Amino acid sequence: METTKVYLSGGFHSMWRDKVKEALEGFKFFDPGDNRDLNFELNEVGVWNKHHLKKSDIVLVNFEATNPVGLGLACEMAYAFALGKTVIFVKEVNHSLKPRYLDFMDNFATIVLEDLDEAIEFIRSYDGV
Amino acid sequence: METTKVYLSGGFHSMWRDKVKEALEGFKFFDPGDNRDLNFELNEVGVWNKHHLKKSDIVLVNFEATNPVGLGLACEMAYAFALGKTVIFVKEVNHSLKPRYLDFMDNFATIVLEDLDEAIEFIRSYDGV
Amino acid sequence: METTKVYLSGGFHSMWRDKVKEALEGFKFFDPGDNRDLNFELNEVGVWNKHHLKKSDIVLVNFEATNPVGLGLACEMAYAFALGKTVIFVKEVNHSLKPRYLDFMDNFATIVLEDLDEAIEFIRSYDGV
Amino acid sequence: METTKVYLSGGFHSMWRDKVKEALEGFKFFDPGDNRDLNFELNEVGVWNKHHLKKSDIVLVNFEATNPVGLGLACEMAYAFALGKTVIFVKEVNHSLKPRYLDFMDNFATIVLEDLDEAIEFIRSYDGV
Amino acid sequence: METTKVYLSGGFHSMWRDKVKEALEGFKFFDPGDNRDLNFELNEVGVWNKHHLKKSDIVLVNFEATNPVGLGLACEMAYAFALGKTVIFVKEVNHSLKPRYLDFMDNFATIVLEDLDEAIEFIRSYDGV
Amino acid sequence: METTKVYLSGGFHSMWRDKVKEALEGFKFFDPGDNRDLNFELNEVGVWNKHHLKKSDIVLVNFEATNPVGLGLACEMAYAFALGKTVIFVKEVNHSLKPRYLDFMDNFATIVLEDLDEAIEFIRSYDGV
Amino acid sequence: METTKVYLSGGFHSMWRDKVKEALEGFKFFDPGDNRDLNFELNEVGVWNKHHLKKSDIVLVNFEATNPVGLGLACEMAYAFALGKTVIFVKEVNHSLKPRYLDFMDNFATIVLEDLDEAIEFIRSYDGV
Amino acid sequence: METTKVYLSGGFHSMWRDKVKEALEGFKFFDPGDNRDLNFELNEVGVWNKHHLKKSDIVLVNFEATNPVGLGLACEMAYAFALGKTVIFVKEVNHSLKPRYLDFMDNFATIVLEDLDEAIEFIRSYDGV
Repeated sequence: METTKVYLSGGFHSMWRDKVKEALEGFKFFDPGDNRDLNFELNEVGVWNKHHLKKSDIVLVNFEATNPVGLGLACEMAYAFALGKTVIFVKEVNHSLKPRYLDFMDNFATIVLEDLDEAIEFIRSYDGV
Repeated sequence: METTKVYLSGGFHSMWRDKVKEALEGFKFFDPGDNRDLNFELNEVGVWNKHHLKKSDIVLVNFEATNPVGLGLACEMAYAFALGKTVIFVKEVNHSLKPRYLDFMDNFATIVLEDLDEAIEFIRSYDGV
Repeated sequence: METTKVYLSGGFHSMWRDKVKEALEGFKFFDPGDNRDLNFELNEVGVWNKHHLKKSDIVLVNFEATNPVGLGLACEMAYAFALGKTVIFVKEVNHSLKPRYLDFMDNFATIVLEDLDEAIEFIRSYDGV
Repeated sequence: METTKVYLSGGFHSMWRDKVKEALEGFKFFDPGDNRDLNFELNEVGVWNKHHLKKSDIVLVNFEATNPVGLGLACEMAYAFALGKTVIFVKEVNHSLKPRYLDFMDNFATIVLEDLDEAIEFIRSYDGV
Repeated sequence: METTKVYLSGGFHSMWRDKVKEALEGFKFFDPGDNRDLNFELNEVGVWNKHHLKKSDIVLVNFEATNPVGLGLACEMAYAFALGKTVIFVKEVNHSLKPRYLDFMDNFATIVLEDLDEAIEFIRSYDGV
Repeated sequence: METTKVYLSGGFHSMWRDKVKEALEGFKFFDPGDNRDLNFELNEVGVWNKHHLKKSDIVLVNFEATNPVGLGLACEMAYAFALGKTVIFVKEVNHSLKPRYLDFMDNFATIVLEDLDEAIEFIRSYDGV
Repeated sequence: METTKVYLSGGFHSMWRDKVKEALEGFKFFDPGDNRDLNFELNEVGVWNKHHLKKSDIVLVNFEATNPVGLGLACEMAYAFALGKTVIFVKEVNHSLKPRYLDFMDNFATIVLEDLDEAIEFIRSYDGV
Repeated sequence: METTKVYLSGGFHSMWRDKVKEALEGFKFFDPGDNRDLNFELNEVGVWNKHHLKKSDIVLVNFEATNPVGLGLACEMAYAFALGKTVIFVKEVNHSLKPRYLDFMDNFATIVLEDLDEAIEFIRSYDGV
């Protein structure tokens, strides 16, 4: 049986990546965070990320309220959306950036949720492809 | 003869859009700035922009040094890049955001230039398709 | 200059098709209503409609409150949506069918509007592609 | 060996989904009925269904004579057909809706059968892909 | 305005190609018969034909009752069908080949008609794309 | 490990299908001959065949010298070729049809071989994909 | 009427580009040689060339006997071939490189000709698309 | 779990192919060198290579300093790049050909590295897809 592949896009400072991986058994995760120790050049990172975005089934984009910029996450989200991936955009409330900056991004997501837990429950309903 | 279509992505406050249009004769421009008076809802804006990104031949993305956020521009750039458009990313130096935030974006552009004038000269070498 | 092509999907009994054509100058319309006198077989109708849905830029789907079934319209809408067309779904309120039957259809539209006039104004912002 | 994936589209009130699953061993089923207890929002349902329609090999559409509306089923069928899936449309006779409403839908199916049993026998001839 | 392009596939001995061209004004025809005097090698013929099949909107396949083989016509038809073209298959009755040989070919056509005149009337309902 | 899938296209009267299957271990075969006992309608056969042509990696087309018509085989070959499959066309010499009828078909094959044994040796060099 | 677009790939030292342009009236040429005075950076050249290869209908690749390397030409040819363009590969005899180096390149061309004049005559049979 | 497939493109005389295979466990390699003993015709080689380039996830192109021509490698690289593969171009310094001949090739690679070891480390960060 093929496994559903989930790409994790977002910041690297909170523990949200571990939380998702622990909550969802039986999925395959593509996590750019796994390469942080490899000292890749920025173009190597880009090539790795685009490759795995193409190979993923679901792209989970987590725009945490504490994320001050989000440009990398925005690129990954829109890129995956154009490729026809199921893009789940978690947009936390009380964000440090004004809502109007973030709301336009909704146009590049398949679905917008306010909460990582809600996203986890939604992904759980997908099983092996 | 078909006309080369250029989408203009970036901020709305400087006069860069007019500058490009005046400098390049014989091109067709898709400019989201033309709809600013229509009071579209944000999803209408998104639908219009994605439609015209799909129809464009070249996407000129101008990330001016004075642009404080750039999330919308990042989405449009990566979306167009995934669709196989020729994406010209003008990334001004002395940007208010740290270079490392912007440099990752290079991975979602066909070519990166530092100057709007250089981009105009490059586009000029394209004629009617 | 290429012309933006708009496919008109919906019922044949009110005058909405004429209204749209008169309101929007400079567009090319694909209107299955134009073939009503040709006595096509049902498979000929299907071939004509699918051909022109593929060739269109925008598909305007008008689900009038008086339309009692809508199955043909639903097929055309979802077909066009899967092909990546810009699908504008006008869903009139006070519909004879219960809202919950219609609301699921939103998932197969690019944008949902409640009013034909609003759709006309939106399409007007598109010019020759 | 990869398994042939069959999406089940149609009503939720008869036991036809169970019948198909029991009759066909060795297939993987994508059944939106499995999520009925999860209280998904309508857009979550839509995202789940479109995702699994994309991942399926065969889409079995069962338009039972007792199904009074069929708009959701029509959208799923035409969407899958446009994506190039093998769409099997079971159209029961003596339908509560007039035949002319249903017959146009044939244009959005790969094959039309009158009987669920016939569909089951046909699918059985597909083995692991 | 773009013109609808019609590829003519079939035998070279009757005058059916001229008949179609004369009956349908305002269409662009791709007619391999126009190159018969150029003494192309068989691979040049193949390259020309495949190129123009790709560029056509409609492929009109005329399998005349007097055509004793039809292998070239069968290849062009199935090739065009796989590319998503609107393939009109005119299959004359009283064919020199047994019906069961021809009937399987229906699976590689968008629509099957018995008469060239019927095909001409159908194509006439298409106007400039 | 994924298995290379080979579709067998050609006549049903000699034992060539068994010969290929026995000679090539570790491959998955899609063989329309396996359904000969199921008494499918001709459109069911067409749907099954097109489905499995789409799913195959290699299409082996065997045009035996004793095959008097070949129209079905020609359709399957050109259809698979347009889909980008690796199409191996075995064209036996001393064919009952004149060479000039068969030679045009070369344009719809990836490679042309004169002998089934040669085709078997070539396919053997492909292993699990 | 749309014009057939021909990309000219090959060396810049003989006058072959002018010869082709003069011999073929009514075609649109994309000629990287036209930008030689613009002092583009090598990545600008690459972006321009790939853009126009994508937009072309026919790619004429002229590997002159005097061309000592041909790596750029090889890249353009294979790139265009993978995109499904009609690639005409003129491979002059008496080449300074051994035939076995050039012959493998045939696999990335739609048709191979030995003479520029032959290519010109072939292209002439294409008219406005 | 699916395995990441790596195609090895380049010369056949050094031991670089063995080095890569030994260094990277858990990957599937497509190596045209494995067929050198089969005495394939040049078109058989081409068909095999294009087939496996299409099926690969990563194409590793090794342009060794001792490789005097590189035309085959250039074709494979550009072909794979146009298909959207992750193309890693290892371009050794001190090449026997002048840098300006090689540098244009960068435009047909996803990433350019100077060293086979660096490429191996990069590929190692990809695991089962």
